[in-house]
Amino acid sequence: MLLLIPGPVQTRPEVKAAMAQDIAPWDRDFQKVYARVRERIVGVAGGTPGVHATLPIQGAGHFVTEAAIRTFVAPGAKVLMPMNGAYANRMARLAREAGRVVVEVPLTDTRGATAADILPALEADPEIGTVAMVFNETGSGIVNDAAGIGDALRARGTRLILDAVSAFGVLPFPLADHPECDALVFTSGKCLEGMPGMGFAVARIDRAEACAGNAGSWSFDLSDVLAHARRSGWGSIRFTPPVQAIAAFDVALDLYEAEGAAARRARYQTNADILYEGAQALGLKPYLAREHQGPVIVTIHQPADPRFDLMEFVEALKRRGVLISNFYNTAAPTMRIGAIGAITPDDMRRAVAAIGAALDEVLPKAA
Amino acid sequence: MLLLIPGPVQTRPEVKAAMAQDIAPWDRDFQKVYARVRERIVGVAGGTPGVHATLPIQGAGHFVTEAAIRTFVAPGAKVLMPMNGAYANRMARLAREAGRVVVEVPLTDTRGATAADILPALEADPEIGTVAMVFNETGSGIVNDAAGIGDALRARGTRLILDAVSAFGVLPFPLADHPECDALVFTSGKCLEGMPGMGFAVARIDRAEACAGNAGSWSFDLSDVLAHARRSGWGSIRFTPPVQAIAAFDVALDLYEAEGAAARRARYQTNADILYEGAQALGLKPYLAREHQGPVIVTIHQPADPRFDLMEFVEALKRRGVLISNFYNTAAPTMRIGAIGAITPDDMRRAVAAIGAALDEVLPKAA
Repeated sequence: MLLLIPGPVQTRPEVKAAMAQDIAPWDRDFQKVYARVRERIVGVAGGTPGVHATLPIQGAGHFVTEAAIRTFVAPGAKVLMPMNGAYANRMARLAREAGRVVVEVPLTDTRGATAADILPALEADPEIGTVAMVFNETGSGIVNDAAGIGDALRARGTRLILDAVSAFGVLPFPLADHPECDALVFTSGKCLEGMPGMGFAVARIDRAEACAGNAGSWSFDLSDVLAHARRSGWGSIRFTPPVQAIAAFDVALDLYEAEGAAARRARYQTNADILYEGAQALGLKPYLAREHQGPVIVTIHQPADPRFDLMEFVEALKRRGVLISNFYNTAAPTMRIGAIGAITPDDMRRAVAAIGAALDEVLPKAA
Repeated sequence: MLLLIPGPVQTRPEVKAAMAQDIAPWDRDFQKVYARVRERIVGVAGGTPGVHATLPIQGAGHFVTEAAIRTFVAPGAKVLMPMNGAYANRMARLAREAGRVVVEVPLTDTRGATAADILPALEADPEIGTVAMVFNETGSGIVNDAAGIGDALRARGTRLILDAVSAFGVLPFPLADHPECDALVFTSGKCLEGMPGMGFAVARIDRAEACAGNAGSWSFDLSDVLAHARRSGWGSIRFTPPVQAIAAFDVALDLYEAEGAAARRARYQTNADILYEGAQALGLKPYLAREHQGPVIVTIHQPADPRFDLMEFVEALKRRGVLISNFYNTAAPTMRIGAIGAITPDDMRRAVAAIGAALDEVLPKAA
């Protein structure tokens, strides 16, 4: 089965194999593995050792996102969000339920947000101290202009929280160039091609210290995660983690470094291009204009044919060895297909052929 | 290597093997697996289908404990806790940082709490609506009298949250007999011998509905977890889970059912007995009197010899193929040894011999 989904992604056999072992998380031998993972993550983030630290939160990506908001935005404080997708909606809900005041900038979900989109709202309300945004919108495949927005925020003295869950490792945002960024968050099971289970914030140490007391949740307090690491050593993880996922992530980082960040991005871009063009050749209509299409997720309009049923199509495709999302997150009905994971361009060509065959099955042409 | 720790425990090869696969959590085939796991958990909890539901929270056990407190204790409300161990301390911190008012009943960490210990404090303060307590104290090995306390609370109309993380599956607390219990929480990597990564609350459906709006955290809102399950089907999990840990847990439940709950408890009890008696035969002093020693964790006083260093001892024992905790959570310095996991009495006899040999190495007798 070929998993063409935005995560948990298809992984390489050696990554999966690292899951099949018992590990005591606090064991000295494992602490070395984990300390190494932490350091490598700061490297992938383009951060600066001593300035940035990898702060783990186990569980779903939403958990580390909530932790970043709770830690870096004080209770009752205002945080601005460009709203152009399902994951922006989720981030807003996470913040609101945590008692933060969300200032929404409504945008269309078919193109990435830029600094020009949000500056007027920022200028209109000097109480907004932080912008929180999604880098790659997992719902649609658009890419928000994190670097441009970051630059604009830095010039104004506004802070940034960046949800890079489905971007980290392929869409660059070097933290050393972006001191306005309090935290960049991501998870193990996306573009770094690890297994799901761990979230990480790569955060500024000075800011995590300054924000102690904000979180209103011990579990989600990144300041305490930092304090724990300092007290217990950088190989120690606060609370029991899904330790096999960390062991697998260490292997995934080996493979990432061997492939190289640029080559991985190029592979994903090629995959996305094959999918985008292949869908058009099959008579399908991509949801995004080419210039707004990122390399991670390709969304395609569902055929207008009233006989089309997404679940039926997904099952027909699955019988052909390809699994895509059986739900969609866009404003209009789409099919969401991931271009990431241990997937080659040849895999993607086979997948496009399978999509064509599955379409023929669920929408048979009149005889 | 033999893992003699309170979790993540040593697992059977077939459990580990289930980790080495890619899975899309929302795939229809996997949803059947997960729906089955949910139902089986209600059975292990002695709950009633339709009255009790399994509500998952991915990540560490502390996360599902915080979720239960946030959901079932309103912000600013009072929750009483018997304080007799490290995990009671942690539960109190989780509740306090979430803005709940913790009324502590201080007790010694060398015996389990009973109804008589907490009733005076409950009677003295009619504002206390809930008791939250640890079932098996992972720090020491004592077992609190959950059934007796539950009965007393039911008679008074007080609610109960039970942290059964290192008890679930072997220390019985049948939820059908305990309608005073809002939620019993546990994790995948303890007495059910799964892999770490998932927490679960087995909760009363009526109470989870009535408590909507309490949590102050979308991630930790068990009412929303319930609403999601109802809306999306009981095979659907809210937010990406460590899905391999769930697949492995399904296999672990097969093994648990094949062994039988009584036989598993008896095996752990035998393991604990061998450890308790074997330590005494080596001249070591157990931390707990025999009548307060549970079947899950055995703690032993560190030798009074000033040359003894816990980390050095743990490493000497590890060289002999046995791993125990390299830290302790009791009032006095101890060694913490787990009796749970895929460990046989013969394994435990070998471990006792290894403990003797490691002691001889780190505390050589004068020539």
